[in-house]
Amino acid sequence: MYVAKALGRAPVSVAVIDRRNFHLFQPLLYQVATGGLSPGEIASPLRVVLKKNRNTEVLLGEAVDLDVAHRRVILPDGAIAYDTLIVATGATHHYFGNDQWEALAPGLKTIENATEIRSRLLLAFERAEREPDPAERRAWLNFVIVGAGPTGVELAGALGEIAGDTLRYDFRHIDPRDAAILLVEGEPRVLPTFPPDLSAKAERQLIALGVRSLTSARVTAIDPDGVTVTVNGREQRIATHTVLWAAGVRASRLGKVLAERTGAQLDPAGRVIVEPDLSLPGHPEIFVIGDLSSFTHQGAKPLPGVAPVAMQQGSYVARLIRSRVAGRQKPAPFHYFNKGNLATIGRNRAVAEFGKLHISGFPAWFTWVFVHLMYLVEFENRLLVFIEWVYNYLTRNRGARLITGGKP
Amino acid sequence: MYVAKALGRAPVSVAVIDRRNFHLFQPLLYQVATGGLSPGEIASPLRVVLKKNRNTEVLLGEAVDLDVAHRRVILPDGAIAYDTLIVATGATHHYFGNDQWEALAPGLKTIENATEIRSRLLLAFERAEREPDPAERRAWLNFVIVGAGPTGVELAGALGEIAGDTLRYDFRHIDPRDAAILLVEGEPRVLPTFPPDLSAKAERQLIALGVRSLTSARVTAIDPDGVTVTVNGREQRIATHTVLWAAGVRASRLGKVLAERTGAQLDPAGRVIVEPDLSLPGHPEIFVIGDLSSFTHQGAKPLPGVAPVAMQQGSYVARLIRSRVAGRQKPAPFHYFNKGNLATIGRNRAVAEFGKLHISGFPAWFTWVFVHLMYLVEFENRLLVFIEWVYNYLTRNRGARLITGGKP
Repeated sequence: MYVAKALGRAPVSVAVIDRRNFHLFQPLLYQVATGGLSPGEIASPLRVVLKKNRNTEVLLGEAVDLDVAHRRVILPDGAIAYDTLIVATGATHHYFGNDQWEALAPGLKTIENATEIRSRLLLAFERAEREPDPAERRAWLNFVIVGAGPTGVELAGALGEIAGDTLRYDFRHIDPRDAAILLVEGEPRVLPTFPPDLSAKAERQLIALGVRSLTSARVTAIDPDGVTVTVNGREQRIATHTVLWAAGVRASRLGKVLAERTGAQLDPAGRVIVEPDLSLPGHPEIFVIGDLSSFTHQGAKPLPGVAPVAMQQGSYVARLIRSRVAGRQKPAPFHYFNKGNLATIGRNRAVAEFGKLHISGFPAWFTWVFVHLMYLVEFENRLLVFIEWVYNYLTRNRGARLITGGKP
Repeated sequence: MYVAKALGRAPVSVAVIDRRNFHLFQPLLYQVATGGLSPGEIASPLRVVLKKNRNTEVLLGEAVDLDVAHRRVILPDGAIAYDTLIVATGATHHYFGNDQWEALAPGLKTIENATEIRSRLLLAFERAEREPDPAERRAWLNFVIVGAGPTGVELAGALGEIAGDTLRYDFRHIDPRDAAILLVEGEPRVLPTFPPDLSAKAERQLIALGVRSLTSARVTAIDPDGVTVTVNGREQRIATHTVLWAAGVRASRLGKVLAERTGAQLDPAGRVIVEPDLSLPGHPEIFVIGDLSSFTHQGAKPLPGVAPVAMQQGSYVARLIRSRVAGRQKPAPFHYFNKGNLATIGRNRAVAEFGKLHISGFPAWFTWVFVHLMYLVEFENRLLVFIEWVYNYLTRNRGARLITGGKP
């Protein structure tokens, strides 16, 4: 989308192919899953975002294959020719070989995931309210979140607030504050991609919200009645009916297709290893950007799968295409400018890293709110989200607590 | 819900049983179906609405049967005892014996209906954009709405605005203004429950939005490729893939259960005929209110199934229960005070009847907006909806145009 936006006035014609008709502002998806925002507030129709680009058409469809020799993208009902191809199909959940866990422990990538998780969380409290058996009631009030990266921490923190504040006076037979929220992480600390001092601060802020974390822990089994976790070789069983998955991502299927069709290499996470200009070796007309791209020319590790990397890569490729079309000199290799890392935990609680500056608590949270509202600007939803947030902040309410989907 | 709200400080204990965890502000559901509002903006969790009533508990569950002799409501997983029972389970779609049409022509009663209709409407334009065959493209751009009561008129008007304004610059291969929107009505005029002069004005306003209406017409067949309509004995075939149902409602299943268990009579629409105080004959402890109730003690016809009737009936029953508990005299029989009838058609377009005063166009539309915002007050969503409306009004945009549900 960033490539298309930046090519709006270039003398090229652009076709954007997407399976969905909207752009999803993924960083706020956890707020839909926890009833703070509605789906429509964090998604904008692609046609609206790209409406002013008269050289651009949006196609609702799925790219299932590539015909690299004839430069065509294959859709189930036809093919689209290209001179230059940009692949940015991102990543999906990864259950490390246990795909059967997906139905028991949904991940958070789509609007449908978010409304499904929202229903599960709310339904768990409803079931606990009506459950006469104390052990069963306990199981309904136990929540397990697998993975303590930013998404897992955000979900756990929001759930802590739901149990401690939002639902506090809603029930008559249970006290929602009895909910036990467990965050399971394979690494020795929460937010392992952050500096250790911020991990420690995040953990303290999580504890204040009633979230307990279990680190260096591996999930070895998930079934409808609970989770088995192994810590230091010792197995531990947690009775629960609500497990959320925030542990792993894997590159989307088109990465493998690209490798087969172009001979490009994949990294262990299945991402496509790109050249310094984000193109594929031997294929200067194909670019791979975003979470599907493995860019290893800067620092020891590939660039992380975060939004700022994808956005900067999109702008870079647009610049490169514009200079190619104009016959100008090729720009210098792509360089990611890391503005900092943010993770929010809850109301007035967050951690942030800006180079050597590490902040936490209210200043970090305020920065997080500000940055996310700024990026929402482009999607016209800023005012609505801002008002919803102010309202939720003042009242500690979450208005979008709807159990929907399936048969009522 | 109105009974429970009004009994908040009475010396009684109240249990509200509902299959859903939220109250849905039904009059605005068509705006969700047409992408103007998000589900969370027109629904409030029941626990939030009734939070301050410490004598009230909310139970998520379905009343499947009644044990009138032992005064118990039967749920799938237990029973709830009562001294006084209020049944307000409303109405559902009615396909006049053609239940197989439901999958082809969804009605608009639930949040799930609304997001399904939204997906179908948007997907039709997407399919038309990519359809090379002109006849097929025409079929994707034909929309048929069955029933020209307030809901059908609202849907048709909003769809006219979507085609004429909202999507106007969104596509490259079709002009959304080529969409043909057909409103099919069995009676000889649109809005048949309104005075004839307002029906005529509504029809003119619909024509201005590009909606054509077919009155005295009966749908005789619906299949995936079109609709067959009979007008004056002549059959007419309309090729379309998008049919919406706004034609008929039938009382919910609990009406029949009540009749069987108490001997109460049902009217031809399946509604339970109630006494002047809204109770059942021989059962002063059971009240039936809202769309499920057939109140024939005022005027020639039973009271219509509209929100103001249900709300006034709810307040009446609460007053009656309070006076019973206090040992005071029984209030006079229920009397519906008809404040007027409103139907909106689109931006600056509506009709309204206040006794002998009939208005249309902007004044009627403004009244409609004002009244609906006032009633939303109680559900804390007023400000959000107001802002969304102002935004949509100024930009002619509809931000919540998401195709969701099913596999992406």
